[in-house]
Amino acid sequence: MTETYDPKTFKALTFHDKVPAFRDGSDTPRAYLERCLETIAEREPVVKAYVTLNEDGAREAADASSARYKDGRPLSAIDGLPISIKDLLETKDMPTQMGCEAYAGNFPKNDNAAVWALRESGAVVLGKTVTAELGGSHPGATTNPFDTTRTPGGSSSGSAAAVASRMVPAAIGTQVGGSIIRPAAYCGNVALKPTQGGINRGERQATSMSTHGVHAGCIEDMWQTAIEIAQRAGGDRGCLGLFGPATPPAAVMPERLIVLETAGWAVLDDDSKVAFEGLLENLQQAGVTLLRRADHPLVEKLEQAVVDAPGITGNITPWENRWAQRNLVNLKEEFVSERAKATLAKAEAMSPDDYRAALLARDSAQRCHAAIGNLADAMITLSCPGPAPLWPGDIQGQPLAPRPTGDAIFNTASSMLFAPCVTMPLMSVSGMPVGAQVMGQQHQDARMTALARWIMDQIAPVAVG
Amino acid sequence: MTETYDPKTFKALTFHDKVPAFRDGSDTPRAYLERCLETIAEREPVVKAYVTLNEDGAREAADASSARYKDGRPLSAIDGLPISIKDLLETKDMPTQMGCEAYAGNFPKNDNAAVWALRESGAVVLGKTVTAELGGSHPGATTNPFDTTRTPGGSSSGSAAAVASRMVPAAIGTQVGGSIIRPAAYCGNVALKPTQGGINRGERQATSMSTHGVHAGCIEDMWQTAIEIAQRAGGDRGCLGLFGPATPPAAVMPERLIVLETAGWAVLDDDSKVAFEGLLENLQQAGVTLLRRADHPLVEKLEQAVVDAPGITGNITPWENRWAQRNLVNLKEEFVSERAKATLAKAEAMSPDDYRAALLARDSAQRCHAAIGNLADAMITLSCPGPAPLWPGDIQGQPLAPRPTGDAIFNTASSMLFAPCVTMPLMSVSGMPVGAQVMGQQHQDARMTALARWIMDQIAPVAVG
Repeated sequence: MTETYDPKTFKALTFHDKVPAFRDGSDTPRAYLERCLETIAEREPVVKAYVTLNEDGAREAADASSARYKDGRPLSAIDGLPISIKDLLETKDMPTQMGCEAYAGNFPKNDNAAVWALRESGAVVLGKTVTAELGGSHPGATTNPFDTTRTPGGSSSGSAAAVASRMVPAAIGTQVGGSIIRPAAYCGNVALKPTQGGINRGERQATSMSTHGVHAGCIEDMWQTAIEIAQRAGGDRGCLGLFGPATPPAAVMPERLIVLETAGWAVLDDDSKVAFEGLLENLQQAGVTLLRRADHPLVEKLEQAVVDAPGITGNITPWENRWAQRNLVNLKEEFVSERAKATLAKAEAMSPDDYRAALLARDSAQRCHAAIGNLADAMITLSCPGPAPLWPGDIQGQPLAPRPTGDAIFNTASSMLFAPCVTMPLMSVSGMPVGAQVMGQQHQDARMTALARWIMDQIAPVAVG
Repeated sequence: MTETYDPKTFKALTFHDKVPAFRDGSDTPRAYLERCLETIAEREPVVKAYVTLNEDGAREAADASSARYKDGRPLSAIDGLPISIKDLLETKDMPTQMGCEAYAGNFPKNDNAAVWALRESGAVVLGKTVTAELGGSHPGATTNPFDTTRTPGGSSSGSAAAVASRMVPAAIGTQVGGSIIRPAAYCGNVALKPTQGGINRGERQATSMSTHGVHAGCIEDMWQTAIEIAQRAGGDRGCLGLFGPATPPAAVMPERLIVLETAGWAVLDDDSKVAFEGLLENLQQAGVTLLRRADHPLVEKLEQAVVDAPGITGNITPWENRWAQRNLVNLKEEFVSERAKATLAKAEAMSPDDYRAALLARDSAQRCHAAIGNLADAMITLSCPGPAPLWPGDIQGQPLAPRPTGDAIFNTASSMLFAPCVTMPLMSVSGMPVGAQVMGQQHQDARMTALARWIMDQIAPVAVG
């Protein structure tokens, strides 16, 4: 049922290249959807990417899309795109259960702003994908499409796995610490974690460091999906929203890239380090100049500013979620995981001044990041610390495993910096995907997409082990 | 039932001055509460400040508070303070109906972060006060305590009226455009609209320009309530929260005040202008230097930057509420007012770029405001364009009255500038209260409180008409 992953040969499901066939009538969105549903029927029993599927609603939407193409009036470049939505976002036609038993059956019948924008674009909202509980670390049932004994990553577990197993060409995820980029990297997707505030989170704006983003099989579908949402629903309240062209930006060769180590470097396994250094070598051979922490004092300064990103983000978000989660635990204590309760307890031990201190550390890191803006086109680093870890489940009577969906250690820096990043499936280690990401200054989402496009076009992937 | 208002003689209900009696046992929070309940029994049938009262819960909380004083261990300086909560904020022991029929019976059993902090401080949460529908302009049943034919202002209608009629010494309101300061000014309260983000809004963080604030009978109770909340729940996500001393700041004489006209100047009635000029005259006689728009080009620049504050705020907030309100209207169209639907229609005619333009205008105004930071101690202006207007209700078959809760024209500037302001009940026009406000740079909440305290101590109120 699963397959070994090879970044050189893996063919992801794509959408943009089928649109000409929709236009000339040789294919239809309905037929495309049916192919997706066949894949789901085949893979879902093992991958378990979905909490809810709305096949009837999707068929209806796909038929409407097919009719629009027939009339020569598609609503957008993603009209007919089957897409799945992380089950943290409200959808008017499916429950929103947030991977938490306390929300079992929760069905507010609202559309999140981004979901609304997708429907306005003609996209076919197909299902709700598994999220780790409340977007945290307590895992759902989803398995890694390339090895069922491993995590797909989280918290956007189902979105990552649905794209990786070719069930859909794109899916919406969300990231607070590392919940878009890490699962995408473990599953071999491309994904965009936009600049903080880039895509309207709708009802999900209670935290200061979280974004909606897009998992996809290719850069073109990734960008097109993101920009169609932003053109209709804009960014978060108070934010200017995603900037960039109405169609995927053309590939741009980076002249110079900063290699960012982050705290992740210290925990990286040897094979993954070899793979990443191989990728860097390929970039240099293609003419890209690399700048490392020893090469410039401002890069070293930034490294120092983000080395505690896991700790800083691990204070900010639990504090911000503290009251909502206290209310939830007060009402339904037995339906909230011990992992979530431990996070709440940590937040409840903080004072407003502890939170202020974390905000100031974040702000300081952002200033260090802004200061390196003109040193290079972007930063590059791994998207995850090696291949997806094994996940055998918690063992009764034992302490809870600390990171069942993997370690966000390479992701919290971009979250804390509010920086756009694009992960690229350019490595494999022992037959499992490992991603690399480009990360830019705030609002350089389109630029990161253009650089990622060039890198994916021009740089040979690296397989190790 | 009502009384003519005279700012020279009106005695508001206060709390801080009763605490010594709680400590020495000659009075108790329970007895204080009972006096509040007596006033409510007397005034509420006409004033209609409350949607929900929780007398049993309040008595229980007041008894617990009384016991703490008896043990010499009050939780805070507001332990035992009876307080009422605008019915937009969730309370675990009372429904949250938001002045909207679509939320009739809505009872999430959660505590808003600020409500949680009040309970942690030992405050006695007594009831939910009437809000204009969804915090907008469609009025509830509350009448002005000084003239039942007039509006109490809105959207914090019930909070303003409850304090003005001495039902409680303090109440929580919220402001997006002018919803704290205006009703406080129409009702003769003091009130603090903090710096944007100063007080944790909890679940109510979907808009970029809204704050929780405090209505009170005196400066001391106002500050103490605000700071007790902030010390426990901090500010909004991503914000440093309210700064200032743990007890009310001492009075500080302003050396120099900028007189800010705003768009309100052009619509101000003659009597109110005479009253305000009289107040300014009193300030000058006390030795305060006044700076007007003709006196400095940066003041003129700021006036120009805020003259369209009503239009700018009137674009930003409806856009930010657009998706939530669309979902609500889709589900319960017949239970949402025509006023709210008209606001939604306006938002739905906007593009993301229209919203961006409004954000940029707001940002530009904030820069103009920052630029005058060293010219004076604060700005001073009216808190409302004259006394509370008559509100006879909508007339069947006629177009909807545009501003049933009064005009926020003197308030949208401070909202847009994210500026802290304190309204002071220092004028009356034709026997109705008219407020004046001091407004400062972001995070100068304590400074504004200190200046307001001096002004209220030292400057004679002005009665006209």
